[in-house]
Amino acid sequence: MRIALAAVTASMMTPLVALAQTAQPAVVEDFRPSPLNQPGQPYPQVNSQGYARFRITAPDAKAVKVSLGLGGRGGTVLTKGPDGVWTGTSEGPLDQGFHYYHLTVDGGTFNDPGTLNFYGSTRWESGIEIPAHDADFYALKDVPHGRVEQILFSSPSTGTQRRAFVYTPPGYDRNMRDRYPVLYLQHGWGEDETAWSNQGHANLIMDNLIAAGKTRPFLIVMTYGMTNDIRPGAPGGLASFDIRPFQTVLLDELIPYVDGHYRTLSDQRHRAMAGLSMGGFETKLIAPKHLDRFAYIGLLSGGTMSLDDVKATPGYRDKVKLTFVSFGSRELEGGRSGPPGGPRSDPRANAQALTAAGIKNMFFVSPDTGHEFQTWRRSLQAMAPLLFRD
Amino acid sequence: MRIALAAVTASMMTPLVALAQTAQPAVVEDFRPSPLNQPGQPYPQVNSQGYARFRITAPDAKAVKVSLGLGGRGGTVLTKGPDGVWTGTSEGPLDQGFHYYHLTVDGGTFNDPGTLNFYGSTRWESGIEIPAHDADFYALKDVPHGRVEQILFSSPSTGTQRRAFVYTPPGYDRNMRDRYPVLYLQHGWGEDETAWSNQGHANLIMDNLIAAGKTRPFLIVMTYGMTNDIRPGAPGGLASFDIRPFQTVLLDELIPYVDGHYRTLSDQRHRAMAGLSMGGFETKLIAPKHLDRFAYIGLLSGGTMSLDDVKATPGYRDKVKLTFVSFGSRELEGGRSGPPGGPRSDPRANAQALTAAGIKNMFFVSPDTGHEFQTWRRSLQAMAPLLFRD
Repeated sequence: MRIALAAVTASMMTPLVALAQTAQPAVVEDFRPSPLNQPGQPYPQVNSQGYARFRITAPDAKAVKVSLGLGGRGGTVLTKGPDGVWTGTSEGPLDQGFHYYHLTVDGGTFNDPGTLNFYGSTRWESGIEIPAHDADFYALKDVPHGRVEQILFSSPSTGTQRRAFVYTPPGYDRNMRDRYPVLYLQHGWGEDETAWSNQGHANLIMDNLIAAGKTRPFLIVMTYGMTNDIRPGAPGGLASFDIRPFQTVLLDELIPYVDGHYRTLSDQRHRAMAGLSMGGFETKLIAPKHLDRFAYIGLLSGGTMSLDDVKATPGYRDKVKLTFVSFGSRELEGGRSGPPGGPRSDPRANAQALTAAGIKNMFFVSPDTGHEFQTWRRSLQAMAPLLFRD
Repeated sequence: MRIALAAVTASMMTPLVALAQTAQPAVVEDFRPSPLNQPGQPYPQVNSQGYARFRITAPDAKAVKVSLGLGGRGGTVLTKGPDGVWTGTSEGPLDQGFHYYHLTVDGGTFNDPGTLNFYGSTRWESGIEIPAHDADFYALKDVPHGRVEQILFSSPSTGTQRRAFVYTPPGYDRNMRDRYPVLYLQHGWGEDETAWSNQGHANLIMDNLIAAGKTRPFLIVMTYGMTNDIRPGAPGGLASFDIRPFQTVLLDELIPYVDGHYRTLSDQRHRAMAGLSMGGFETKLIAPKHLDRFAYIGLLSGGTMSLDDVKATPGYRDKVKLTFVSFGSRELEGGRSGPPGGPRSDPRANAQALTAAGIKNMFFVSPDTGHEFQTWRRSLQAMAPLLFRD
């Protein structure tokens, strides 16, 4: 009701602008602050169609641009009003879910002071949320909540005290005799151990699944995958990434710490590893070579598992209880099937080949999303109920 | 040695500039990245004298300024070099410890893309750390570490799911029969529940104290004090702040949740409340009126406790095991003794009057610091060993 009224008002007020845009429907003037704005900040805003509107105060600036907009068009160029405030609306609707962005102000890169920051692209970037039709599964609801616990563990191999976050499910603090399976869940390139909680809402996804009785409660451990030394376009590309330092931290330091300080089920069939994008690449490099440790493998927009991969891995058929592979539908358009530099074989065909060969697997596609966190939120929601059932 | 050499080099290279500054000693060219920089970011930098140097890329900007500099001089004005990069050094050394700041770029307020952000002034601000001579007490060391646990608790009074952080000391996860005292620790105006961990390093202060056997292990609970609706200069000022909504959340919702989900000692003599600045104001409003709940009271740059206050509070002498009051030495200069709008009576004289009257208390002054986090880090270090000893 409110949307329809607003639309009429907008079309009455700006008919020429609406006509000039032709191909796009009229922008509905029901903009509301993005759910990720800093407390009390009215901008950026998002409307019911998924358009984003930005507002930046910089009265003496010559040019202000937002990196977010329509693919390939270089973002949203803001226009200065008589009050010295720069405003602009994305040229079209953005995909539902979370997007990173930043501002370019007179040639410098800054964050939007209106929004919260999220670690991506090896820096704390601005974030905006286009409310999704299925946002309920990661909403903060009045259900029992687990915790996200920051731990600091000693890492002799790197000579540092390292950080990880551990999701413990509701009830972990009370059911003192219960022990829990563990999922080791990796972020992507440019991100760090904060991503799955901040951008991904992994804790809320689990809280809601558990409240609905849809998944077995388990721990999720998230640490920095040491991915950010390799940058796209660097000599050697992704192939030159050395997995060994992180593998040592994970297998020899973090897993023993977690099993020593949490009530875990520490046998192979109660440990999973998964990751998004480069975190999936890491998962594929580590888990199949250590099937004495991992029984579940998840690649989220992070490559695929082919029948050749499986055949080349002794024990895969018996030891791996599930191979989960997912992508956003937009990643599969044009034949793209993974992170830059990753394998380009058809992931759906690979999954079908695994199924035909009797290899337990699940192939999941997130509708109308790309290489972004909405794909990975949905992937976690789809994957969690399938873990630790054997 | 390295410092002396660098000083010679600097004075040889820029003798005229050094002479022009006259009153200040020559700036020693041993600048290093601030410990709070984002990963891989070389700027801002700090030298051994406490000078800060900034470097901002914004080639088309007309003016770039940093809010941090010398008191009352309006910050540090940056100068554009031929490469389009703006640089500048603070006019003098800054106090040791943590400082908030932001940039003004062509009239707009932005954060420095080089640093991490910290919630203060009701927004995520840039932060810089001037390494302190006593930084060891909050350093990340190879000692057993506690956790900082994010909990989400249901708040019927506000109709929300609210967040708190709980520090659990090392050993909490193993000593399953032990129960622990709890300190409820509040941030200041403009900050939130993240401040004591991010800016204050409360967890590392406790880890180090516990490793040295200097304090009894206890929990620290940090939540948002709902302080930010009242702004300095607002009608009514601090006096118009309504403590009741937060008092309800704290007493009726958070404390029962914590006592229900952690192994606490939940009697009066094992519960403390303290806060910095406006959090001290909140502590003084809540704790003395609820001495059935709190046995320890800490006011950190947040007002004082006078003998009149004590006499006006039934049971104070018997029930309060310690009143801890602290300030930074610079706050006591010129007679200032608390947050804006707060009580102006002499805190040292008040403490002496309490002592003379046999009221257990401790008055602590942080040397050469002001209304900033270095004062409060030191205050926590001084206060923690005095808690829960009766």
